[in-house]
Amino acid sequence: MERELISWLRRRLPPHERLLRGIGDDAAILAMANAEQTVMTVDMLMDGVDFELAEIDPRRVGHKALAVNLSDLAAMAAKPLAAVVAVALPRQGGMALAEALYEGMLPLAERCELALAGGDTNSWDGRLVISVTLLGEVVGKALRRDGAKPGDRILVTGSFGGSILGRHLDFEPRVYEALMLNACYELHAGIDVSDGLSLDLGRLCQESRCGAVVRTASVPVSKCAVRLAEQDGRSPLDHALTDGEDFELILAVPPDEAAKLLRDEQLSVKVTDIGEFVEEPGLWQLDEHGQRQPLSARGWEYDFS
Amino acid sequence: MERELISWLRRRLPPHERLLRGIGDDAAILAMANAEQTVMTVDMLMDGVDFELAEIDPRRVGHKALAVNLSDLAAMAAKPLAAVVAVALPRQGGMALAEALYEGMLPLAERCELALAGGDTNSWDGRLVISVTLLGEVVGKALRRDGAKPGDRILVTGSFGGSILGRHLDFEPRVYEALMLNACYELHAGIDVSDGLSLDLGRLCQESRCGAVVRTASVPVSKCAVRLAEQDGRSPLDHALTDGEDFELILAVPPDEAAKLLRDEQLSVKVTDIGEFVEEPGLWQLDEHGQRQPLSARGWEYDFS
Repeated sequence: MERELISWLRRRLPPHERLLRGIGDDAAILAMANAEQTVMTVDMLMDGVDFELAEIDPRRVGHKALAVNLSDLAAMAAKPLAAVVAVALPRQGGMALAEALYEGMLPLAERCELALAGGDTNSWDGRLVISVTLLGEVVGKALRRDGAKPGDRILVTGSFGGSILGRHLDFEPRVYEALMLNACYELHAGIDVSDGLSLDLGRLCQESRCGAVVRTASVPVSKCAVRLAEQDGRSPLDHALTDGEDFELILAVPPDEAAKLLRDEQLSVKVTDIGEFVEEPGLWQLDEHGQRQPLSARGWEYDFS
Repeated sequence: MERELISWLRRRLPPHERLLRGIGDDAAILAMANAEQTVMTVDMLMDGVDFELAEIDPRRVGHKALAVNLSDLAAMAAKPLAAVVAVALPRQGGMALAEALYEGMLPLAERCELALAGGDTNSWDGRLVISVTLLGEVVGKALRRDGAKPGDRILVTGSFGGSILGRHLDFEPRVYEALMLNACYELHAGIDVSDGLSLDLGRLCQESRCGAVVRTASVPVSKCAVRLAEQDGRSPLDHALTDGEDFELILAVPPDEAAKLLRDEQLSVKVTDIGEFVEEPGLWQLDEHGQRQPLSARGWEYDFS
């Protein structure tokens, strides 16, 4: 029963200073004093596409559903504020599944000081669908995709490739890192890598009306990309450039600021300079001999027609 | 291709004064100056549960998906601000379907001065799922479920029952009416009727820790409830009390204010006094002989276990 879930949630959810009224009304009420700008984003995950419910602990699905959205807030350098969660549950075992999804979300929400403000819980004969919408608060200036300038360095957090081996479910979104970097350095643009390093870098270039040259030898390749490459014969670099669901950040940073940022080493996660934004539209790779070759923007794209 | 849909939307969507950055980034950016409080709500609709896609124009699905959310904002007396839309599209014909859904939302969004700010478009092997999240701005004081006082009149907009004959897809949410009534009169509490007049009245009572006595002869029964009753042998009143998806408002209004509101007749939609909130928890009906009988709070509830 939806009523039972609502009672359980009302007991389980911690209070939040901006949440004036949470679950139990037609909408949540949020106090917005001094929030000059907000950002809003939604991501929907589906069983069989973004995870295989039969094979994993459903708490990991809850974590992922919230984390992919928090990664979008990180890409805007926005502070998490409130979430609403809509689910379509399979009829059998729906109540236990709903609780497990929330149990997966709650620790991450608390770490990010995010209020779980409301939701819509449904059941049907189909597979699990979960849609999370986040509201975030802009602190200072929002990071956007359209601010990269020719000459900016391409900085990335973490490493890339092979997320299918587990990281795509269990990653920690770069919320704190984005807020910290945006507060301490001049960042021109940012995006998170959901669909693939090359594809999302291409998107950032397109919005900024510029191009990018990637020094492929500098791309941080994850251990999982190496393991996957051993299995399928593709190169670790190819996995790093195209696998997607890394949920790391790509940042466009003016050269002086980039040098300072890399020197300061303020984050626990490694930040790497992988190349440069250039005037000419398009993507290129620089190999170890300094040769420039076209780089295709590949990754996960939806194939509906 | 999602990219084509995004290009189409960027051309198609009108600008909005609060929308600083819409579709095309990791999140939408909204200007929030002078918005002291916001409300946030989400509703997810599924093919086979909330509509039958094979039998209707998909633009009506788009309209309904937005309208049910706007009805929640109306229940809070909040001004529509921004929406994000997440969809899981069947693989075949997804692009045309996505466009039709948006074509169904756009006229309603424009009438309500709502910005379509962003979304997430996916395809899968399942049936259509659409989830809309709305952000609204509180003007004055938000209407809540928990403010009804014993002695308050029960006022309702419009008429009830039989919405399955078409109204559940094509209704106009009571956004304007709620804003106007909340601005001009002292309203204690409100809710919209999504799951049934008696069930939603019961919810309002539960949150307000009071009861309600409904004069059944005063309940405005819709023509569709009468038509449906002729087909199935149930009474028109029974349909009016339990069918749901009327998306009308139930308001708790102090007696003097209620009298004034009814006398003024400021709305084009009829407002009707159907009874009184009382101290004792529970729901009752008063029949034409003045006899008080228990009234069960029935309607649409989700049956997951």
